[in-house]
Amino acid sequence: MTITGSILIGRTEQAQAPTFTAVNPATGASFGPPISEAGPDHVDHAARLAAAAAGPFADLAPAVRAAFLESVADHILAIGDLLIETAMAETGLPRARLEGERGRTVGQLRLFAAELRAGHWLDVTIDPALPDRQPLPRADIRRMNVALGPVAVFGASNFPLAFSVAGGDTASALAAGCPVIVKGHPAHPGTGELVARAIVAAGLATNMPEGVFSFLPGLSNALGAALVAHPLIKAVGFTGSRAGGLALVAIAQARAEPIPVYAELSAVNPVVLLPAALAERAQDLGKAFVGSLTMGAGQLCTNPGLVIGFDGPDLDRFVEAASVALAGVAPQVMLTPGIAAAYARGVAALDGHAAVARAGSGPTGGQTSCTAALFRVSGADFIANPALSHEVFGASAVVVAVRDREELAALLANLEGQLTATLHMADPDAPIAATLLPILRDRVGRVLANGWPTGVEVCHAMVHGGPFPATSDARSTSVGTLAMARFLRPVCYQAMPDGLLPAALQRANPWNLPRRVDGAWSVA
Amino acid sequence: MTITGSILIGRTEQAQAPTFTAVNPATGASFGPPISEAGPDHVDHAARLAAAAAGPFADLAPAVRAAFLESVADHILAIGDLLIETAMAETGLPRARLEGERGRTVGQLRLFAAELRAGHWLDVTIDPALPDRQPLPRADIRRMNVALGPVAVFGASNFPLAFSVAGGDTASALAAGCPVIVKGHPAHPGTGELVARAIVAAGLATNMPEGVFSFLPGLSNALGAALVAHPLIKAVGFTGSRAGGLALVAIAQARAEPIPVYAELSAVNPVVLLPAALAERAQDLGKAFVGSLTMGAGQLCTNPGLVIGFDGPDLDRFVEAASVALAGVAPQVMLTPGIAAAYARGVAALDGHAAVARAGSGPTGGQTSCTAALFRVSGADFIANPALSHEVFGASAVVVAVRDREELAALLANLEGQLTATLHMADPDAPIAATLLPILRDRVGRVLANGWPTGVEVCHAMVHGGPFPATSDARSTSVGTLAMARFLRPVCYQAMPDGLLPAALQRANPWNLPRRVDGAWSVA
Repeated sequence: MTITGSILIGRTEQAQAPTFTAVNPATGASFGPPISEAGPDHVDHAARLAAAAAGPFADLAPAVRAAFLESVADHILAIGDLLIETAMAETGLPRARLEGERGRTVGQLRLFAAELRAGHWLDVTIDPALPDRQPLPRADIRRMNVALGPVAVFGASNFPLAFSVAGGDTASALAAGCPVIVKGHPAHPGTGELVARAIVAAGLATNMPEGVFSFLPGLSNALGAALVAHPLIKAVGFTGSRAGGLALVAIAQARAEPIPVYAELSAVNPVVLLPAALAERAQDLGKAFVGSLTMGAGQLCTNPGLVIGFDGPDLDRFVEAASVALAGVAPQVMLTPGIAAAYARGVAALDGHAAVARAGSGPTGGQTSCTAALFRVSGADFIANPALSHEVFGASAVVVAVRDREELAALLANLEGQLTATLHMADPDAPIAATLLPILRDRVGRVLANGWPTGVEVCHAMVHGGPFPATSDARSTSVGTLAMARFLRPVCYQAMPDGLLPAALQRANPWNLPRRVDGAWSVA
Repeated sequence: MTITGSILIGRTEQAQAPTFTAVNPATGASFGPPISEAGPDHVDHAARLAAAAAGPFADLAPAVRAAFLESVADHILAIGDLLIETAMAETGLPRARLEGERGRTVGQLRLFAAELRAGHWLDVTIDPALPDRQPLPRADIRRMNVALGPVAVFGASNFPLAFSVAGGDTASALAAGCPVIVKGHPAHPGTGELVARAIVAAGLATNMPEGVFSFLPGLSNALGAALVAHPLIKAVGFTGSRAGGLALVAIAQARAEPIPVYAELSAVNPVVLLPAALAERAQDLGKAFVGSLTMGAGQLCTNPGLVIGFDGPDLDRFVEAASVALAGVAPQVMLTPGIAAAYARGVAALDGHAAVARAGSGPTGGQTSCTAALFRVSGADFIANPALSHEVFGASAVVVAVRDREELAALLANLEGQLTATLHMADPDAPIAATLLPILRDRVGRVLANGWPTGVEVCHAMVHGGPFPATSDARSTSVGTLAMARFLRPVCYQAMPDGLLPAALQRANPWNLPRRVDGAWSVA
């Protein structure tokens, strides 16, 4: 497979000006072929193809679409080391991380394939006719979920595989039966094209209708805006900055037909160190915390940017251990010069804040490296300065020393929506944990005990979401099989002759689906 | 029970200026006590009580909340004939309709109670720990749905019981564990207060936390705006006009924390008369159509305002039969003078349209009566004039005579989102029906065969929703047990000690819930 810098629309490709190039963040050097910048005509072409493919694609038997997803996984693996090496050069992420991320991406596609076959996602619900009911008979009513239509996906820079071209948004939208148009992230254009070509090849290999997938690389915000504004696009998946996500939400809301935007925006993922846990293992916690904080140079949406404990010698020991560990973490190049610059500004703002003390630092590397940073502030000052709770994207965290339980509860109750919250506790902490859990539940998508929020499991029970501004839609998750639900809506059929019903609803149950009949589930 | 015109907040009530009064739409006469107009202070008070009640209310065992809903039903029935007579005087709707609507309202509350006990709505999903998994172990992860928090409900004028104070939005939000604040509709203030008092009494009888319900009557748009803008409100249910609903959506989106608005906005509910059906039973169809069109003076969201058939003698026979039937329908007073005036304007606009011919009329009644109206237009003219597809709220419909199948398909493909679409067909129509069904599925929430869209069944499989502008959120239904999903979001717990988990997720399954464990459902 060769990287050509092309725009891939359905089964066609084109390379044209204007172009841009990939940049190696470690060296600042441009490399690779010129990458074509897609424009409004490409958006329109891709959207028309997607809309034409939408009905046939949605109507495929689940097992047929599952085979497509599995073929995508196979084709990604078949790219081989070129994919890993391209991603390393484009993102600065190390080989082991990218190999792990590839495994996660492929595993995710296969999990959605299995979920497709299991069929619960269709939520088939049947209330049979009651012709003799008084005072009025009941007609036969049958409900199922149907695909929303073409979905625009905006990949993230920080997961060039797992949250990008064939990442969770694409996999879940395709699984739901929605054609996908990916706006390629300019920070990893070659990686994106390689994966896009794998999807196109898988579509050909499994006879998918043309238009189920297109890939539009581009630097400009106008490209993304045109995609979200296109009337044939029916939903949007986005992972990135708060400002970028909110701009897309505004475009989607201003359309003649508003559409849902599932945007993951920002989070600091509070970690609470309860007293008995801190007394028992402050040093171990400090060391483990730094492992989570500096993973991927802190460029993770679940990065623990906020740690809270009771002021005192145990918290001092935690900070001391973290500081020591931090000093030993090798500096890691950040994904883009822009991200590195924003990180430096965020850290400088904390350094310059009168209420905040520097509590630890990582070694300094090159200009685009992340120099990890740890800060400390009192609970009162943290509550009084809302800016201190804003995300600094990278390996920076604030440790808040609270006075007492009341201040801790007030601080948590005051937080914006988050992806995660974590409690570190020992047995004697159970009563205080019990009082905090309802507060946390109302603010997050995932509550952890005695772990670290980084490393999101892809499974049925996962929720990677949370109240605004963690995401733009608290009712959804972008990781795990429930992510499919974002791209589905219910439709019911009343008194429809069996031969005209979709296969999922036909009396003979040709797809052998689990169904809820008259209120009772029968499990297939 | 006595109507006092009070504002009901939690367990307190207050009557104060400014006030307004109920109006009998049949006579134009004001009657009943002065009704207090709630203001921003009342919104704030009710919202604070609701927020304080939200956690305890959401954490109740499902059976306990179910008993509350059943008590609401009992207390509504216990009001007796006063409720029916008050609603008759305030809305002009006839006794039989209101008695039926009361039965539906009570049945709906009981259905949600049963659904609460069944427990599927919690969607409990468990991925057990895999401590030996390579390369990394998996933690125990458990997911459930939790309530969004306080919900603002805006009742509809056209269903003073089933879509108002204790209607579908309130019943489903309370079932989901969300406190409810109802903005009372000024077109039926006494009816609203009686039902609100029933809910308050049920809350006392079943020991619900204060604040799970408040009732804020008012005339002003400012009251509704303040309610949707209040930071403690977490979701909105609305049934009413497109302009009113979109205004609330805009307020909800402009909040610091945007919230979901489930607004039912407008629909014309296309009915397609396929050729064999029309040849077989044009006259019966014409007569039955008029029954659906004029039900409740046409003031139903599922009113069939658009009928489409192939131009020719069979369609002529349909129109003729409908016209004869229409002439024999007694005029019915409309809900408010404002609705009657808007209806008259809508009909006058159709009468004045060059492309449209009057095809039938009902008898004329008093000034606020609905004079039913039937129009006819060609397919080409209908497609060329988008305004002809806009809803006229009341017993007005447009019959479109299309030239051929292509024009029919183009017309349907061109329609905005709808609550329903209906096909009337006989056996020979199956092939054309099969080509139209995918088009209709993409545009509606419910597809009917050989029936009429009015009379929405409250059951598990019902979808009363649809793409914009039928509703503001195509992923939802406002009728049927799935309506609860609008007020829930998923949360997961990772590696949480059993004793700290919510009851729904504990290993012993104390609530005996259906659960999905490692991908497989076990049905309780």
